[in-house]
Amino acid sequence: MLAEDDLGSQRERYEDPLAESYYEAFETITRDSNHELIVAELNGTVIGTLHLIFIPSISYQGRLRAQIESVRVDTEYRNRGIGAQMMLWAIELARGRGAHLVQLTTHKSRRDAHRFYKRLGFGASHLGMKLNLK
Amino acid sequence: MLAEDDLGSQRERYEDPLAESYYEAFETITRDSNHELIVAELNGTVIGTLHLIFIPSISYQGRLRAQIESVRVDTEYRNRGIGAQMMLWAIELARGRGAHLVQLTTHKSRRDAHRFYKRLGFGASHLGMKLNLK
Repeated sequence: MLAEDDLGSQRERYEDPLAESYYEAFETITRDSNHELIVAELNGTVIGTLHLIFIPSISYQGRLRAQIESVRVDTEYRNRGIGAQMMLWAIELARGRGAHLVQLTTHKSRRDAHRFYKRLGFGASHLGMKLNLK
Repeated sequence: MLAEDDLGSQRERYEDPLAESYYEAFETITRDSNHELIVAELNGTVIGTLHLIFIPSISYQGRLRAQIESVRVDTEYRNRGIGAQMMLWAIELARGRGAHLVQLTTHKSRRDAHRFYKRLGFGASHLGMKLNLK
């Protein structure tokens, strides 16, 4: 799913077996209590992913912030509310852990995603800036 | 410094002694090897802060991403390259740890900050979206 869209296809390697680096990242993430990797399943097939990260912060009076990355839904299963269900689950989990904020960045070209997040209550208050390292 | 600017003054509590929540966050951050809290010092006084976070990721072939938060320089010491020095230090550290990307969000109203990050090579490719929780 990560390799499937225009942006993802330039940066992922989808092959069988999958590159070892994916497995290592998965291990690291699942061991760390500040990370939650969520998948949506339908009859045993993964049709959605979401990565929720808790970040302790010195700003905002030292409160926890929650961040969301790698939100993807299988193209065949879009527009059925699966992404929204995953997001609402993540937002509730963030609230339960006492986070004051949920944040994410989304590429300026992903207009459908902007509408999707706005419907969930997110405001586009910030610029998301990236520096690619070699 | 966090409480000093227009946005910060609405969300920080600067008092002596500082709220316990700040100290607890500081403890959590310093214990976690995925976090680096950097301060710039001049004659024993802290005049700048930067929080660097390493985030393992399942996208980008499982590579590490680096994120920067809480970049502040004391108003009396701005425009002297202190912020740039902290940023360049953080970028080098991120490169050294094998991160493929350094990311940050900055409020749309912080135009000086946008120029500052662009000079350092950051592209404003993304929207930064936030959802405040009660």
